[in-house]
Amino acid sequence: MSKFKLAMIQMAVGMSKTDNVAKAVKFISEASSAGANIITLPECFNSPYGTKFFPEYAEPIPGPSTQALSEAAKKNNVYVVGGSIPEKDGDKVYNTCAIYNPSGELIAKHRKVHLFDIDVPGKITFKESETLSPGDQFTMFKTPFCTVGVGICYDIRFAEMAQIYANKGCQLIVYPGAFNMTTGPKHWATLQRGRALDNQVYVGTASPARDTEAGYIAWGQSMVVDPWGDVISETDEKESIVYADIDLGKLEEMRKMIPLRQQKRHDLYVPPSLNENKERRGDLYEINP
Amino acid sequence: MSKFKLAMIQMAVGMSKTDNVAKAVKFISEASSAGANIITLPECFNSPYGTKFFPEYAEPIPGPSTQALSEAAKKNNVYVVGGSIPEKDGDKVYNTCAIYNPSGELIAKHRKVHLFDIDVPGKITFKESETLSPGDQFTMFKTPFCTVGVGICYDIRFAEMAQIYANKGCQLIVYPGAFNMTTGPKHWATLQRGRALDNQVYVGTASPARDTEAGYIAWGQSMVVDPWGDVISETDEKESIVYADIDLGKLEEMRKMIPLRQQKRHDLYVPPSLNENKERRGDLYEINP
Repeated sequence: MSKFKLAMIQMAVGMSKTDNVAKAVKFISEASSAGANIITLPECFNSPYGTKFFPEYAEPIPGPSTQALSEAAKKNNVYVVGGSIPEKDGDKVYNTCAIYNPSGELIAKHRKVHLFDIDVPGKITFKESETLSPGDQFTMFKTPFCTVGVGICYDIRFAEMAQIYANKGCQLIVYPGAFNMTTGPKHWATLQRGRALDNQVYVGTASPARDTEAGYIAWGQSMVVDPWGDVISETDEKESIVYADIDLGKLEEMRKMIPLRQQKRHDLYVPPSLNENKERRGDLYEINP
Repeated sequence: MSKFKLAMIQMAVGMSKTDNVAKAVKFISEASSAGANIITLPECFNSPYGTKFFPEYAEPIPGPSTQALSEAAKKNNVYVVGGSIPEKDGDKVYNTCAIYNPSGELIAKHRKVHLFDIDVPGKITFKESETLSPGDQFTMFKTPFCTVGVGICYDIRFAEMAQIYANKGCQLIVYPGAFNMTTGPKHWATLQRGRALDNQVYVGTASPARDTEAGYIAWGQSMVVDPWGDVISETDEKESIVYADIDLGKLEEMRKMIPLRQQKRHDLYVPPSLNENKERRGDLYEINP
């Protein structure tokens, strides 16, 4: 199965968790009816995005929000990459993406590894680490179509993560993500095109729709980029579904034309923490069997 | 000295090595008169670009072509990043960039590490490895302004190399490079913007001017990109000099606003060759004292 349809859901997220989850379920059903095989929700789809909201909206996984995703995946016979929700685990809260297979089983869970702590004076200051804890694993999952790597929003700025996913066999990386009105126009598309081109993978993003009344205004512009670095499908800032026909034959063709993977000089790529003798955590990748 | 002027020379390269070298020297003088502190020539500035030309035009370093660069650096009191020439060393030919300080001393030499072997059917097929050997080191050099990393053309496609340069303290990476009429419009700017944004460094490229009569038609569009991913100076396909005022204060500011370097999770970035137990070559970076 070298071809499949990917759907990236750009939905408006409001204050009511129940409404947000119901809307996500509706969108999954709509995308499935349109033929999508893998459906990705936006970052923080059940809660407004903001440090004060994360603990308030947090729930365990499984819990009510992800239970709804599990049922929607099974009912529609699709893979659901559950954007993210604030996940409560003991005393900690994570920004977590739960992934369900077409049987409705939880097959992987990605906790945002790189927390969004930035300070652009006069523009945007945000510190996720005020209420969130970071994940300690990278996350891939296998489907009959291809292996998929998962990152959440700020994770996309860290090229190393995408390189590892590509090296380990991912042909698609999805990033649910809520860039903002400063970083969105400047970096959102460039980062995606770079990850796709450098790693010769498809890249898809799902943002919340833009709500100019919100405390944190998401940029929108969910898109899918092909391994040649071209945007093959995108939307504006409003609610919508971005569909893309993924052709893994095309990916293999590109990798053959410009054979970066065979030409890499891993013998020379010595990462800094090796030189500094820091402890490595080893092979921490969550992947479903 | 947190500010300096960078010049990227986009010169037409013809069949006469003597003329090519004389033109390079003239451009260095012109850029110096305009206040440039670091001047970069294009890839293969003394020879037409083509596998059959490399052995024919090759010479040792030091040799006549690089001797002219040494003298030009000293005479104009500038750093000269000598684009590249086919370098003869024993039986082998390399695509090599010789770097001179304002005293005219050879302070570093970069041999293109990733050879340009691609095959885009009906568009561009090229195999540098037919006549060239690859380098086995990365190359940085220190100036009173900042530390500079050097790559040649196809090296830019390998994100790992730029990451290592940034991790080791480079604030500027220069890539003399001759992209072509297929890869130029598709990837040239995207790759530079990606390297700059991901690593929060300045990136500069110097291409030969476009010659539509040549066997290999260079794309041109030499440019300089700032650490925010913005193109701050560029040219079209014709002969010209691209100047950019580099402000390392601005770079530090960007690194403070989006503190990627402190947020990297090197504990999780395990490169593939470690997992595969391949031998590492260790700390092979050429850097002048």
